[in-house]
Amino acid sequence: MAVIYEKVALIGLGLIASSMAHAMRQRGLVATVVGHAKSAETRAAAMELGFCDAVFETAAEAVAGADLVVLAVPVGVMAQVAAEIGPHLKPGATVTDVGSVKQAVIDAVAPHIPEGVHFIPGHPIAGTEHSGPRSGFATLFENRWWLLTPSEGTDATQVARLRALCEAMGANVDEMDAPHHDLVLAVTSHTPHLIAYTMVGVADDLRRVTDSEIIKYSAAGFRDFTRIAASDPTMWRDVFLNNKDATLEILGRFTEELFALQRAIRKGDGAHLHDYFSRTRAIRRGIIQAGQDTAASDFGRGAVASGRGADEKKQ
Amino acid sequence: MAVIYEKVALIGLGLIASSMAHAMRQRGLVATVVGHAKSAETRAAAMELGFCDAVFETAAEAVAGADLVVLAVPVGVMAQVAAEIGPHLKPGATVTDVGSVKQAVIDAVAPHIPEGVHFIPGHPIAGTEHSGPRSGFATLFENRWWLLTPSEGTDATQVARLRALCEAMGANVDEMDAPHHDLVLAVTSHTPHLIAYTMVGVADDLRRVTDSEIIKYSAAGFRDFTRIAASDPTMWRDVFLNNKDATLEILGRFTEELFALQRAIRKGDGAHLHDYFSRTRAIRRGIIQAGQDTAASDFGRGAVASGRGADEKKQ
Repeated sequence: MAVIYEKVALIGLGLIASSMAHAMRQRGLVATVVGHAKSAETRAAAMELGFCDAVFETAAEAVAGADLVVLAVPVGVMAQVAAEIGPHLKPGATVTDVGSVKQAVIDAVAPHIPEGVHFIPGHPIAGTEHSGPRSGFATLFENRWWLLTPSEGTDATQVARLRALCEAMGANVDEMDAPHHDLVLAVTSHTPHLIAYTMVGVADDLRRVTDSEIIKYSAAGFRDFTRIAASDPTMWRDVFLNNKDATLEILGRFTEELFALQRAIRKGDGAHLHDYFSRTRAIRRGIIQAGQDTAASDFGRGAVASGRGADEKKQ
Repeated sequence: MAVIYEKVALIGLGLIASSMAHAMRQRGLVATVVGHAKSAETRAAAMELGFCDAVFETAAEAVAGADLVVLAVPVGVMAQVAAEIGPHLKPGATVTDVGSVKQAVIDAVAPHIPEGVHFIPGHPIAGTEHSGPRSGFATLFENRWWLLTPSEGTDATQVARLRALCEAMGANVDEMDAPHHDLVLAVTSHTPHLIAYTMVGVADDLRRVTDSEIIKYSAAGFRDFTRIAASDPTMWRDVFLNNKDATLEILGRFTEELFALQRAIRKGDGAHLHDYFSRTRAIRRGIIQAGQDTAASDFGRGAVASGRGADEKKQ
């Protein structure tokens, strides 16, 4: 494929940034990839694995001359990074980010973007429970959604260019406004993560059941929860602190529903339980039809030795 | 392998029973497998798929002459089935079940078991979100736990014999008392299922977010929840109605913890969130080490076209 951005600077070199680097290089979408990470060990890993052509100790150095700057750091440090790179951005460059919340990132980053630089916030809905520069792989974004939340008045040509990059990495791209993005993600990702973390914590606290029993007898449900709850703590702390309103709203609805089911259990109302459980099957079928998952029995069984490259088999 | 039971009668021919039939036949653990299901369609499927040598319209006919009777029906109908088969059980036979709760099954079944017949309750911790006679496969129990909860005074020779059958199907077997089983499963399976059902219901209710958006943008967390929430509604209704006390206790602890995290989000207490999220990673590592799951990045990606036969690849 043709080069879409001559020089890309990745600020932060974790799972998402390293996967972008692999995908962009493998498909010839960029000429040069440079990077910055605070940790010397991470920078060394990027060079060793060969997904960066050069790495820099400061973000300011990394963005010099870059046509595209990708902020791939926890949401909580976006403001600080944006303040640092602002004066060093090349006129006409595009700045994007990969944060899981969008309005808070816009509030943090936009004030530091100089006139003549395009800020197009983004969020690839893709990930694994692994983190760090060694966890990235080129196919992470294939058939995943990449949401862009440009503000009104953003240069349409530059939005189309960034969109072309995401699509060339295999993603489907949609645009929406930032507050709506934050509500949708509160439902489909943020609140489920919080719940999974909570349940795993409860299991750990219960002294009458040993950790060994929890681990040995963890059935499907709990195994999936622990998988979710193994995600990066810093990233998730920042998600909840920065998508507070939507998460609290969805949590309120969740506990209301949960209390209704709890009451049905206490009262022995089997019809209420059966109706509720039947209704949820339809959503599952929708997800399979939308191609976001397979109908295969999984529960931790179907996982092949490496999650990479298995995408081709998706139904 | 040697035949462990000459004739086995399966009462109920869903996922678990059909998987047992496939596993027992494939490994030569039984000479004859007969079955009963209320639905003529299910009985026909069992014959068509060849996992039963004969099927019967009544449970009473099916158990005649059987050395092992497996009750593989929803927990809510165990009492009725036990009452029906009681007078027809062969002296010296063993009756077991595969219900997800144990004390309620003992209360329902034990009164109907005649003197001279051995009742050894059991629970294979294995399953997929699929149900019915066509969803079974021979490797379902491989490297999964099968819990037996015999009461004191049960014939040790017959417990060892049933244990040998489970192990020959690939399972690891542990024995514990029924109330402890019900508490452990409330933590590792029942409560997580209820929570997943609830979250999927909340998503479906939220009118500002369309079903299409939920489905398109369902990130890892929510996809896993929908997978869990697609399980058989009748089975799960019966689990909650019959493991009421333990489930309500764990739900109480869960909401207490969830409220503490909710409060941390509201107050912006990042340290509390980060500490909590860090702690849960250790449990995940334990589960991987215990061989109940793989470290591979999965999230619905690694699932191969069929979950069957993929077990060999488990790390």
